Amino acid sequence: MNIQFREIVKKDLVEVWELLEQLKPISEIQPEGFIPDIDDAWTEFNSIGIVGLDGGKIIAFGSIVVENKIRGYRSCHLEDIVVDKEYRNIGIGKRLMEYINDKVLKNGCYRATLFCREGLIPFYEKTGYKVNSVVMKKWFDIKNI
Amino acid sequence: MNIQFREIVKKDLVEVWELLEQLKPISEIQPEGFIPDIDDAWTEFNSIGIVGLDGGKIIAFGSIVVENKIRGYRSCHLEDIVVDKEYRNIGIGKRLMEYINDKVLKNGCYRATLFCREGLIPFYEKTGYKVNSVVMKKWFDIKNI
Repeated sequence: MNIQFREIVKKDLVEVWELLEQLKPISEIQPEGFIPDIDDAWTEFNSIGIVGLDGGKIIAFGSIVVENKIRGYRSCHLEDIVVDKEYRNIGIGKRLMEYINDKVLKNGCYRATLFCREGLIPFYEKTGYKVNSVVMKKWFDIKNI
Repeated sequence: MNIQFREIVKKDLVEVWELLEQLKPISEIQPEGFIPDIDDAWTEFNSIGIVGLDGGKIIAFGSIVVENKIRGYRSCHLEDIVVDKEYRNIGIGKRLMEYINDKVLKNGCYRATLFCREGLIPFYEKTGYKVNSVVMKKWFDIKNI
């Protein structure tokens, strides 16, 4: 299957949002019925977004949050890695990760991290990642600020 | 002890670098003898840095990497949380985390994440964090790009 990868452009946004619903419905974060504003979301987005395309259709996404650290070097964190459920188990996730790893290196990051559930460890191991430490999360109620 | 917290300013940089050596020596990341450039590091730093001061001395640091997500909301990741070894076990870490948590909320982040080793779980639990998932890391050789 001839899947192409490239950086996201603004016209991809709505399709990427639809794809991300497969990863986590936005209703789990924002109030029911919330629709992001395209201009605001695009202007404020501060990561490197990567899309995978089957012809004109976006079937994969991932983002690289680059951190310019206080001591003058770069690290990054990967977020929102997803492959369309119609396109899973045929190696596209691995190719997406290879593309992302290449971008990480070209951006001069010495380290990339990601969170995942235990079932995905074997997948990410195939792309060079190793289990490292514990992730802790805290949720904030942003509706009343 | 009257510890004050505030956002980092440029003149704090060298003291913060010295403090971060207690967390991870920069020689583990950069070639031996590397000294970051103050102007470059300050200009490129893209997180919110928080310092804790005992009078004029910087004795704590932490940074908040804010991610403006592709769907138009904000998340963040905490990095480089450290308290000077001469000031540990007297509640400063907890106060630093309270200050950071307040900043996270004021910045409209729905979620903050951090990585830690297992021994630090009880500490972060006291500040509202819960163990969530697995962290995986990949190291990149940036010396040859």
